[in-house]
Amino acid sequence: ADPALRAPAQAHLDDLTKPQGSLGRLEEIALKYVLATGKLDPELSKKKICCFAADHGVAVEGVSAFPAEVTPQMVYNMLSGGAAINVLSRHAGADLAVVDMGVNHDFPDTPGLLKYKVKPGSANMASGPAMSEEDTLKALLRGVSIAYDAYDAGYHILGTGEMGIANTTPATALYAVLLGVPVESITGRGTGIDDERLQHKIEVIQRALAINAARCTAPFETLAALGGYEIAAITGFILGAASRKLPVVVDGFISSAGAVVALKLSPAVEDYLFFSHTSNEQGHRVIMQKLGARPILDLDLRLGEGTGAALAMQMIEASVKIYKEMATFSSAKISEKSAL
Amino acid sequence: ADPALRAPAQAHLDDLTKPQGSLGRLEEIALKYVLATGKLDPELSKKKICCFAADHGVAVEGVSAFPAEVTPQMVYNMLSGGAAINVLSRHAGADLAVVDMGVNHDFPDTPGLLKYKVKPGSANMASGPAMSEEDTLKALLRGVSIAYDAYDAGYHILGTGEMGIANTTPATALYAVLLGVPVESITGRGTGIDDERLQHKIEVIQRALAINAARCTAPFETLAALGGYEIAAITGFILGAASRKLPVVVDGFISSAGAVVALKLSPAVEDYLFFSHTSNEQGHRVIMQKLGARPILDLDLRLGEGTGAALAMQMIEASVKIYKEMATFSSAKISEKSAL
Repeated sequence: ADPALRAPAQAHLDDLTKPQGSLGRLEEIALKYVLATGKLDPELSKKKICCFAADHGVAVEGVSAFPAEVTPQMVYNMLSGGAAINVLSRHAGADLAVVDMGVNHDFPDTPGLLKYKVKPGSANMASGPAMSEEDTLKALLRGVSIAYDAYDAGYHILGTGEMGIANTTPATALYAVLLGVPVESITGRGTGIDDERLQHKIEVIQRALAINAARCTAPFETLAALGGYEIAAITGFILGAASRKLPVVVDGFISSAGAVVALKLSPAVEDYLFFSHTSNEQGHRVIMQKLGARPILDLDLRLGEGTGAALAMQMIEASVKIYKEMATFSSAKISEKSAL
Repeated sequence: ADPALRAPAQAHLDDLTKPQGSLGRLEEIALKYVLATGKLDPELSKKKICCFAADHGVAVEGVSAFPAEVTPQMVYNMLSGGAAINVLSRHAGADLAVVDMGVNHDFPDTPGLLKYKVKPGSANMASGPAMSEEDTLKALLRGVSIAYDAYDAGYHILGTGEMGIANTTPATALYAVLLGVPVESITGRGTGIDDERLQHKIEVIQRALAINAARCTAPFETLAALGGYEIAAITGFILGAASRKLPVVVDGFISSAGAVVALKLSPAVEDYLFFSHTSNEQGHRVIMQKLGARPILDLDLRLGEGTGAALAMQMIEASVKIYKEMATFSSAKISEKSAL
């Protein structure tokens, strides 16, 4: 990010035909976008959302309301255009790529699907590490290269998304270790589990933390022990995008876990991140406060896939259009605020 | 609104390929839209925002940071496409009409401008009634007919907006009387006044309430005594839209005052109203709580013009697309939540 642009960008925002600051967060977002891209006249038209999919060994512990076979079924649903993220990407005018990072299913070659499977699902983190460090690095670097490819293809902004039955469980475990928050305070109902199963999920996460305690020495090692292939890819995707000065819209509870790992590995990525929405998944609000982040939307979403990122992308695009397209006081011959 | 559609619409939402309720407020919005339109397969593509403009006699009391001549200047800015509402209407794919209900200036005929001036500004409500009841009715009925025209032209959803230097003052006075809230608790800085002038603004409003107390016998009479031509038009616009089953997106602090008058005249309009955003104008949050409304966005906007309505319209359109375009569990052959 280029802090030298702050003063001229703010001066331009203040010269637009509106009371100073009256567009609130739209102005903050536009300013952040300018600093991130390093361009006083930035572009925002070519948009892409990448939805990373993977299965999770911990699903065998019965932590989700849905069976694991739903992961490949939902990937097929996305490939045929019927999932929520298809609808909302189209609405936002964003291209969508579905990335198989570790689904327990062999997909045929299909337009819109990137086949980058590292393994057909992580191992059960409640009885050992979810991934080897080597496989974790593979997934992370794949995320980096996907972001580089998007940069080379001329995209101006990227959004994260994910699909993976049981993946609120690894995300919660990562938050607990990396941000030091109690598991009970951030464990939620995911796709919709009842009280009894919620208690069970908390116990499974605590077991995973205990059995992997010695492995969680640093952020990357923690990601390997408690993460998943889609989360590792999101981490890399964010790091890669930031290194190319590409702003990234972070979806909800799972994507934010990838963002937290990226932030721990490289705090400077913060300048490129837009947290899209406060998830209705218990704990996301706590995590956002812990990060000092104020997400753009608050619509009680708890679906993932990139749905919040797609919606927030429209607000970011609106902000940049305000910055670029409004008249200025001088050009429009409008009286400024009276001195009085 | 048609409550008989609630069960089938909810059943359809629950059959979409996502955990039940996981799209949160998007699902609530889609349901409200279905009930409002009375159509199980509603349309939402043709959108219109009407920005009602008027001047206010109370501006002579020095309640605004901007001089009154900014009202016509900003109308010209809107007509030449340089105002925030132009940018955000274009972004939302909504048509924009600017309606002169009472600006103190003679505009030439211009595309996009509806010339329905009742008077060149209201009288100073701090020394008597802002409008006669006859003129108030004229403005209100003009708002009704503008909504009818939009219906006849095939619009699916309407949005309100306004422009009028000093118009947070009449809006605040209307809230104080119609909702019984203390003036101090809801008087804000409008376009950006300082502490001293804020105190003065409170005193002006209290003087207006005192001098007009005997006139404020009922909602319509209160609107005449303390309102303005754009607010009266917004009231009629909402009543007219609701009577044609057209959903209306209510902008911010000023537009909500028109909505409150409409709700007091006919509580059934509630079924057609979408409050777009919580304004950063002091008091709007209090008013929304008083109405039991939870606006869609919270972006610290305090500009008016219809800017919040344009942004929220995109979220409503997203919600309706989710309802109409997502695959269902049965069609996509996806396993439902396990019984367990």
